[in-house]
Amino acid sequence: MNQQTDYTEQIIQQAKNAWAAQNKTVSKFLNKYDDAVYENEIAPGRNRAVYLLGHLVAVNDGMITLLGLGDRLFPHLDEMFIKAPDKTVNDIPSVATLKQNWEALNEALTHRFSQMTTQDWMGRHTSVSEEDFVNEPLRNKLNVLISRTNHQSYHMGQLNLLQA
Amino acid sequence: MNQQTDYTEQIIQQAKNAWAAQNKTVSKFLNKYDDAVYENEIAPGRNRAVYLLGHLVAVNDGMITLLGLGDRLFPHLDEMFIKAPDKTVNDIPSVATLKQNWEALNEALTHRFSQMTTQDWMGRHTSVSEEDFVNEPLRNKLNVLISRTNHQSYHMGQLNLLQA
Repeated sequence: MNQQTDYTEQIIQQAKNAWAAQNKTVSKFLNKYDDAVYENEIAPGRNRAVYLLGHLVAVNDGMITLLGLGDRLFPHLDEMFIKAPDKTVNDIPSVATLKQNWEALNEALTHRFSQMTTQDWMGRHTSVSEEDFVNEPLRNKLNVLISRTNHQSYHMGQLNLLQA
Repeated sequence: MNQQTDYTEQIIQQAKNAWAAQNKTVSKFLNKYDDAVYENEIAPGRNRAVYLLGHLVAVNDGMITLLGLGDRLFPHLDEMFIKAPDKTVNDIPSVATLKQNWEALNEALTHRFSQMTTQDWMGRHTSVSEEDFVNEPLRNKLNVLISRTNHQSYHMGQLNLLQA
């Protein structure tokens, strides 16, 4: 194994670490308050924390198909937490259920990520065609991980405004 | 150049692209409203947008020394925007000045980043000792870029709550 191979694997590890660090931050936040507090809006008139939690689960769950890792765990959440804005759907899962979903999803993703090779990460994600990928090789699976990590930071900034 | 070399350079490029995309999002946001609007809090009782802007400039400017790229452009901002919370310092720069600082800094960082080699990015950042870096090789300059990109997303999530 040459030095360059080391770097590639190392950088992929760094991207996975950044992702794991964000997950840890969210998990820690979810253990900060009683479940009822997450029903509150993060600021007056804004999304409720429970909605942002459902949104993060739904978007992260979508990585399973984007990365070609099998069947999604919670595809039913898209309708409520991606396609619909907050407070427009009456029956959303409870905070307790979404917290369980969050942990189960992280475990599943972490397991699947650990089985991916460098070639897997450098390959195209499923929403890019083979033809487009020839010209846009940066639209690979690693890019999905990088952008989802940033997406999570974005909403974590908002979640941290929540008050008990 | 072998395939592995390509990947290393490519992944560094992806991290730089993610950074640039975040910068673009913030720059676009800064052109959304009249300057006076950025004096508002992002939510009642929370940080003002102008403070978060100063904070982003100060933290990103800190990358210049962390990455060993020369002298910082705006070291005087740390006192107001990192060490002090919002609304505790009377004389902070105007929104117009901070917007100029933001653009000048991005230009300077983009230029400096473009001159960095793979070896540079894989080297230790200046707050890690040579001894520690032997055991923790992931604490390299690229890691600073990745974490600062996430930091920017975090605050962008908050800035987007601003209302005119």
